[in-house]
Parts: sequence; structure tokens; C-alpha cells
Amino acid sequence: MEEHLRKEADTIIAASLKAVMPDEAVQRALKEFKSGKGKVILVAAGKAAWQMAKAAVDFLGHIDGGIVITKYQHVKGEIPGIQCYEAGHPVPDENSFTATQHALESVSGLTIEDTVLFLLSGGGSALFEKPLISGEELQDITRRLLACGADITEMNTIRKRLSAVKGGRFAKECEPAHVFSIVLSDILGDPLDMIASGPAYPDSTTCAQAEIIVSKYGLKISPKAESLLDIETPKQLDNVTTRVTGSVKELCAAADKKCREMGYSTVLLTDQLSCEAREAGSFLASILKTHAGSGKRLAFIAGGETIVRLTGKGLGGRNQELALAAAPGISGLKGACVFSFGSDGTDGPTDAAGGYVDYTTMKALQTKNVDVYQVLQENDAYHALRMVGGLIMTGPTGTNVNDVAVALLDA
Amino acid sequence: MEEHLRKEADTIIAASLKAVMPDEAVQRALKEFKSGKGKVILVAAGKAAWQMAKAAVDFLGHIDGGIVITKYQHVKGEIPGIQCYEAGHPVPDENSFTATQHALESVSGLTIEDTVLFLLSGGGSALFEKPLISGEELQDITRRLLACGADITEMNTIRKRLSAVKGGRFAKECEPAHVFSIVLSDILGDPLDMIASGPAYPDSTTCAQAEIIVSKYGLKISPKAESLLDIETPKQLDNVTTRVTGSVKELCAAADKKCREMGYSTVLLTDQLSCEAREAGSFLASILKTHAGSGKRLAFIAGGETIVRLTGKGLGGRNQELALAAAPGISGLKGACVFSFGSDGTDGPTDAAGGYVDYTTMKALQTKNVDVYQVLQENDAYHALRMVGGLIMTGPTGTNVNDVAVALLDA
Repeated sequence: MEEHLRKEADTIIAASLKAVMPDEAVQRALKEFKSGKGKVILVAAGKAAWQMAKAAVDFLGHIDGGIVITKYQHVKGEIPGIQCYEAGHPVPDENSFTATQHALESVSGLTIEDTVLFLLSGGGSALFEKPLISGEELQDITRRLLACGADITEMNTIRKRLSAVKGGRFAKECEPAHVFSIVLSDILGDPLDMIASGPAYPDSTTCAQAEIIVSKYGLKISPKAESLLDIETPKQLDNVTTRVTGSVKELCAAADKKCREMGYSTVLLTDQLSCEAREAGSFLASILKTHAGSGKRLAFIAGGETIVRLTGKGLGGRNQELALAAAPGISGLKGACVFSFGSDGTDGPTDAAGGYVDYTTMKALQTKNVDVYQVLQENDAYHALRMVGGLIMTGPTGTNVNDVAVALLDA
Repeated sequence: MEEHLRKEADTIIAASLKAVMPDEAVQRALKEFKSGKGKVILVAAGKAAWQMAKAAVDFLGHIDGGIVITKYQHVKGEIPGIQCYEAGHPVPDENSFTATQHALESVSGLTIEDTVLFLLSGGGSALFEKPLISGEELQDITRRLLACGADITEMNTIRKRLSAVKGGRFAKECEPAHVFSIVLSDILGDPLDMIASGPAYPDSTTCAQAEIIVSKYGLKISPKAESLLDIETPKQLDNVTTRVTGSVKELCAAADKKCREMGYSTVLLTDQLSCEAREAGSFLASILKTHAGSGKRLAFIAGGETIVRLTGKGLGGRNQELALAAAPGISGLKGACVFSFGSDGTDGPTDAAGGYVDYTTMKALQTKNVDVYQVLQENDAYHALRMVGGLIMTGPTGTNVNDVAVALLDA
């Protein structure tokens, strides 16, 4: 491993992660926040709800009240003026329903002068929920839809109609107050009606679609649920401003920015990568092969969420596999490295955030009699990378906005 | 299919192919050709030898003699001053040996004022050969090396030493005349000692390596062959100038140039792509997804030779598979298209050169009840693309310098 190159990589990794930490991301989005003359009520839901709320209150100085709903063990202390609740995830429980009811109460009776600061993060779908049928029936319907192979869009089309807050209904409840919604996105492409089933976003699904799904799967539901499916969700919300922050787009933009600060010419290829991890690694290596020797400092950035094709039983993750797969292609290309990491700090079932390889890695592995192609076939990137100092260790980061891979040429 | 986009694609395809036709490629390289005061002798070997020789004679106007050695049925007419031979390919035959002997005679007795114009193309390894052992023994050794799993580098290390022309020896025979060597490259990365086993290129393999290979595979060979393995190949050739032309690099550069002429900002990603075809298609689609809506006309170019993972029994080729795999990702992205084609005009076992998809393709296929993912699983891109006018048909082109894929955004 070339020490200098690895340091360059670590600098880029640290700067990229910092930009998507909930506190940085929320405060960046809040620069555009303007409250009315009335009260400001905060409602935060999701795995990062506590951090987001803390950052917002620190930034704004004062809030007129509000609620945090997050996972068990995720409340890290008191926040002035805010009531913090912990609830069930990934399966909602009574605490989810109770806390969500309190959130609804906190935004009822507001005036057009008031503002709701709504902070949403991954996990919000379970944590921020108040079903219009019993919790048991909701769970039963979800389970049966899953069993008959319904996809996520079909599931959400049904569930939005059985909920008091999903599919834009929470924003409706806030009316006439304005809703400033900050979304920490953990889904590629930031589909706002999908993240936590879009409590403050106009719903694109229709009652007609819900009916088709019910008959397609021959779903038996109670008369109450049946009548709920006939009630349309909001198609337009004039009282909502939405800011997506801390998304993979920002993770990539931060990596790009840091690379430029360090003197690299950058090409931001994509923030929506979704192909196989090892093929993405090979593709990035091919790019470096072509540009090596150009005498330029170049950085190619590709973010998203690759997939691992399971062909073995080893230990690894998609980022480690991507990086390792790039090693043969850049072998011997002086100044070339490829690294990839998950923003949550946990790549697959490992304690590493991702993997790093450079132009010396292939030789180092050969010296240790490690056959890269065989390792990839075994999905065992973790052990191979560990042998050559190629693991990226950050520990859990407290955010989750997918991954980014960087291919560097330090000429 | 959007007619306008398809026309843009066809214009880029035609311009790219034109640049790598043997005649254009040879004439481009000949702009740097300077003969001495003496004679100019032409020796052309390979599948494109006749076209290359014809183009050279047309360009230079006069040649003092020379020889073409190409495949059966590949001589298309007389060329003034040139003797044309047809011979065995991929297995060399007596005609290969006889013609090569004539080539050696034509360059013997030259002076330092004379020049040999050496034109090499794919297939030259079999066509340009004069073994130093019997043809039977050479074939026998080749067969046995293959059977025991020797790789191409090992094969060449042995075969170069058993040949009068390979491994730089042809250039040695031309001394003291200067050799101007024009190579039409069909191997990624243009490894000049590999193309036709490098008759006019310094050899990097050694006698010591040859011995190791013989003992590694327990190869039994005749005493004569054994003694030949001890004779070193030229490690330096001061009388040779080499110009690689009509390579995938030039194919990509031509696509890039045409795109720029048409007003696209271009990113030449790589000319050494070697990952799986369908994953490359997905990667390119991800790139377009990120840049769509930027209001810019953009072109991303990736050349090389992808591989097809066989999972079904359909009809297709790597270029068709790459293109089809991009269809879901660019679906609905106005102005986006991805196309990929092989420069030989024959993609896989089909009559198409490659495939084209645009932002309307996915919908068109859905209308016809075609499931893209299932088609890819069946490796049946040809039939799916044919249904929606997505095949690229050029007919056999007469060149072979791998493939190029282009992802366009016509904003």
C-alpha cells in the first residue's frame, strides 16, 4: 500500500462523511428556513430523528415545542422544548402509535402564521405511524401482501390509505400552518413519496390502483379497511417546502468537492449506481487504465448502492467487493487507487465501512498467495483486504445515505 | 424509438467505423512515413493485409515490390508491384510457410537506405509464420500446451523461439533496412509483442522462462526444438518504427470527435472496458440518470470488449446485451440513449453489429409484454431489440478493433 495515496483517500472519506452527518446536513438545509410570525413546532421521526432535532434546535436557538420519535436506545439526552419518544423499528408498536398521536396533537390548531419543522430520516415508516385500523390488522395485511409477492410500490399504495399520517396526510393535518420538511434520504434517487411513505409529500398513488392490487392478490380485508381504500390521499400540498439533505447526492458532491480542493480534476459519474459491485470495480479500473499516464490528477466519483452477486460464503460487503475487483485492473498503474465505502460505516455484515486498493495491492496479494478472482468468487473480500491493509474502518457513523466509490489517479 | 436520437446515433456509428477501416487507418499512419533513399518493400500479413496494402500503395503511389499474405478468399484483386498469397487461418498451412519464406526473401540483402513497410493485422500469427521445426511438430507442441492449460503468454514464449519471424525476428532479418511497422490492433491495450506474436517488436520473454514452462508442463520435445528454446529473441530493435492504428483507442477517439462536432460535451471514460456487458449497460444508464436534466448535451464513451455471462440460451451479443441492460435505467429520461456496437459489424452469432435503446424503449417493450430482466437472463437481447427497432445493422465491415458504447444525453 502506498502511504501517501492511502492518506489522500482517508482525507476524502472523512470530508465526505462529515458532509452527510445529520447535524451538518440539517444545518445546511436550515440556512433556507424562514419561519412565519407565529410558533415553530418541531416533529422529527426516524433513526436519525434525535440528532436532526438536536442540530435544528442548536441552530435555531429556540423552538416552541415539538416531538422526536426514534428507535429504542436512540435518544441521547434532553433537547430544550422537545419531548422525545422511543418506539418500535422495523415493526411499529404501541409506542409508535402513541408518539405519532402526540405529534398530531402538537400540530393541531395551528394558524397560517405558524410553522412545522418536519425532520424525516430512514426508519420513519415504522416509527411515524398511526393506523386507521387496528395495529394487528395492519400487520396482518402487510404480512399477507409480502407473502403473495407484492412489490414495495404496491405495499405502499395500500398502506398509505390505512394510515393517518402517510401519503401526505401529516402535512394536511398541519394546515393551515406551513411545513418545512427536511428529509435525510436513504433511498437512491430520493423518491420523496417513498421515504417513510411520504407524510409531507403529495401522493402519486390512487384509489383505483389500490383496488387493482386488492383484486390482483385476492386480498381479504375488513369492511373498515375496504372503505379506507376508497378515500383519496392528497394529490397537492400547497403548505409544504421540502429540502432533501444528507442524500447520496450530497455524499458524492462532498467527495467531488474535497477532491477538487486537493487538486484533482473530477468527473462525477453518477450518484445512482446500482449494478453489481465487482463489475463496477472493474469498470472504474478500466477508466483509470485509459487515463493513466496522462500526467493529470484525476478523480472519478460514482455513488449509489451496488449489489453483491452471491457466489460464495465468505465475509465482505458491496464496497469491499467493488474495491477488490478493481485491484487487477489498476495493478502497476503508478498513482492509481480505488476505494468505496458505505456512509453508515458498516459494509455488509462486517466491522469495516469499505475497501481500498491501489496499484500495489495486486502484487501484495500475490505475494501472500491470494488469488483475487477466487476471493471474489467466494465473496470473501474482507479477509483479503485485511491482509494488505485495505479495509476502511470508521465505526458506525450515525447516518445512512448509501455508498460512494472514488477512482483516483495521483499523477 | 425517437427518430432524431436514432439518427444522431447512426451518424456517430458511421463516423467511428470509418476511422478504423483499414484504408483510413493505414493512410492516417502513413502521414508520418518517410522512406530512405533506397527501395521501399511492402510486407503485409493478416486478415486485413490486402486492404492495408491496397491503401498503402494507393497513398504512396509507388512501391518497389512486396508481398501480401492473407486468408483464403481475402485477396480482392491485383495490386501493382505486389504478390498476393492466400494461406491457412487460424491454423497455418504450407501456403503460410511458403508465402512467409517469400516475404523473408524479399527483405534479404537490403541496405541501410532501404525501407520495409510492414503492415500487420489480426490473424497474422497463423498467416505470417515460418517454423524452425516441422509444421507437424509445431502443431503438436501447440496442441499439447493447450491441453495442459498453458496460457497465451506461455504459449507465445515457446512459439516465438520456434519461429523464424516471430518475437522480433522478422525485423532482425530486415536489417540494416529500416522497418516502418503499421499495426491494426485487435487486442485491448495494444500489446505489440502479442499481436501476431510481434514479428517486428522487441521480445520481452526469455529463454529462462521458456525452460520453466517446459519443465512446468513436463513437455517432451525434439532435440532440435530443445536447442531452439536456448536461442534468445531480439530484446532491442533499433531499425523499427511502430505505429498502432485502427485500434479501439482510435474507434473511441473517433466517436468522441464526432460527438464533439455534433455539439456534445464528451467524457471519454475508457477504451479498455472488460467487465460484464449487462453491468456496463447498467453503469452507463446510472451515469445518464444523474446528468439528465442538466440542460447539457453530453456523451459518455466507453470502448473495449465486455463479456457476456451466459445464463440462458437466447440469441444476442455483448453489444446488444449492454444496450438492452441500459433500457430500464434510462426509461423516461427525455433525450437519453445508449448504444453499443462491434467494429467488425458482427455482434455475437448474429447479423447485427450491436444494439440501440433510448428513453422510450422500455415502454415500447412493456407494450409488447417483453420483460427486459427475463430477456437478459435468457441472453436473448437480439429478439427483444429487433421488436423495437433497436438493432444496429452495418453488415461485415472489414475491420476488427473491438467495440464502443456511447451514452448520449440530447438535452
